[in-house]
Amino acid sequence: MSLIERIETALEHHFSLTHGASAPPRLMEAMRHAVFPGGARIRPQLCIAVAKACGENDRGLTDAAAVAIELLHCASLVHDDMPCFDNADIRRGQVTVHKQFGEPLALLTGDALIVMAYQAIARSGRVHPMRTVELLSVISDGVGAPDGIVAGQAWECESRVELSQYQRAKTGALFVAATCGGALAAGVDPQPWRKLGDTLGEAYQVADDIRDVMMQADQLGKPAGQDAHHGRPSAAADLGLVGALDYFNNLMQTAVDSVPACESRAAMRQLVLKESERLVPPSACEIISRQHAAKSTRVSA
Amino acid sequence: MSLIERIETALEHHFSLTHGASAPPRLMEAMRHAVFPGGARIRPQLCIAVAKACGENDRGLTDAAAVAIELLHCASLVHDDMPCFDNADIRRGQVTVHKQFGEPLALLTGDALIVMAYQAIARSGRVHPMRTVELLSVISDGVGAPDGIVAGQAWECESRVELSQYQRAKTGALFVAATCGGALAAGVDPQPWRKLGDTLGEAYQVADDIRDVMMQADQLGKPAGQDAHHGRPSAAADLGLVGALDYFNNLMQTAVDSVPACESRAAMRQLVLKESERLVPPSACEIISRQHAAKSTRVSA
Repeated sequence: MSLIERIETALEHHFSLTHGASAPPRLMEAMRHAVFPGGARIRPQLCIAVAKACGENDRGLTDAAAVAIELLHCASLVHDDMPCFDNADIRRGQVTVHKQFGEPLALLTGDALIVMAYQAIARSGRVHPMRTVELLSVISDGVGAPDGIVAGQAWECESRVELSQYQRAKTGALFVAATCGGALAAGVDPQPWRKLGDTLGEAYQVADDIRDVMMQADQLGKPAGQDAHHGRPSAAADLGLVGALDYFNNLMQTAVDSVPACESRAAMRQLVLKESERLVPPSACEIISRQHAAKSTRVSA
Repeated sequence: MSLIERIETALEHHFSLTHGASAPPRLMEAMRHAVFPGGARIRPQLCIAVAKACGENDRGLTDAAAVAIELLHCASLVHDDMPCFDNADIRRGQVTVHKQFGEPLALLTGDALIVMAYQAIARSGRVHPMRTVELLSVISDGVGAPDGIVAGQAWECESRVELSQYQRAKTGALFVAATCGGALAAGVDPQPWRKLGDTLGEAYQVADDIRDVMMQADQLGKPAGQDAHHGRPSAAADLGLVGALDYFNNLMQTAVDSVPACESRAAMRQLVLKESERLVPPSACEIISRQHAAKSTRVSA
């Protein structure tokens, strides 16, 4: 079973246990709409990959950690897409939750997905309760105040914001929760895995900035040019496309180098490199290089 | 130290631990605005009272359970007050979060408070990890799908809804989490405490319906007549004021009778009776009785 198949199976499993006969049907429909079909599921993949690298021995808890992280990510997308933030019509190539089900249900869908993340952990936590308490702590810190993704998003409501602190919280925090959560689910000290999450998270945000500038909405599966439109901090705006691409490549190299010594180190590095190509495809790198070369020629001419 | 003082101290304690130097200042301000000054804090009072009745022996975990339940309640108020639901300007006698800080920050404040509830539990869970996992489960089920308060609120977005199922989820679920959570924090089987939470929750909702019809906004601390305005299911609308008051009194008696045999049974019953008078003050009962008598006289005349 591939990582992706394992994640989809675990998500379906936890949805089936959350979906009681007494649940409001449209809420359940909206929750599924927010989660299926998924995007790259990179955070839960990372979580499971780290658990495996750490000698996974409680598969149910690993799955619950991965599911929780993906649900928290999906919840943040539902709320970020709402009219008071991005007012986005499309996400992952389909209509956003508030466009399909209305704003009230979108608000509740995000809330219910956050809680469902914890229900998944609670359900799978009885075999190793102490690991579960640690996991609860690491995952919550990746989402809440002071440095989780919700706090990251809240920096957009402040008059002054420092780019790297904003990006680290907005995206990096949940990547850290994914790597550290994977280690904790396997009963292992999460500390050595923090840097991998932190660096990948920043790289992911930089790649997002690059793609937001370069691509069309139909390729992104969501509206393009949103950063400039909303006046949001962006590496591509700060460093230019060439500078942002250099920065991204350095971050991915740092991520690869940070993988601690373990049996499956080669597989982990492979996952990171594959993700790197998915985030900024070789074709995009080529376009940026070509534009840079053309500009240099014009300047020197 | 009274129950209320203990709750305020515990809330302040967990706020001080959540408030890192790196937190977005306006988010933290909005989170505090949503929680202080509080309402009656009936749910956390109930939680601590049950823990004491069960021979409380992990004060930190009891406090965390009480704090979590109050934060989840406050989060639901922030989101329910937003324009896509009640569009309320006042709550607990002060300006609502979205009116003071804007919609984006109100949305994030609710999310951050939900997560902070779990951070409080995680922080206090290491002494009794197995209790903590059970607590995590009971509290999450009181909030999420299929039967928690978020699901209850979501019934307002369905075309068909059954009054008691709606009320049980919308209000009762968090009362059940409060009583069962108190028992679990003390390491005791929560089952005998379920009925108290369930009945009090329903009574609370019925009292809310009665007050929504009877009182002015300045007495309620929030807009009056909201149920009729939003076409929401209401016991006062279904049964009339006299019928609703009878129903409320029966529920409170059932609640008092449901308190299991324990050392502090008398104190628990006292708390319930005091709450009963706070929910529907004797003066309101008198007005309803007088109106009823006047109507009977007119009918028989």
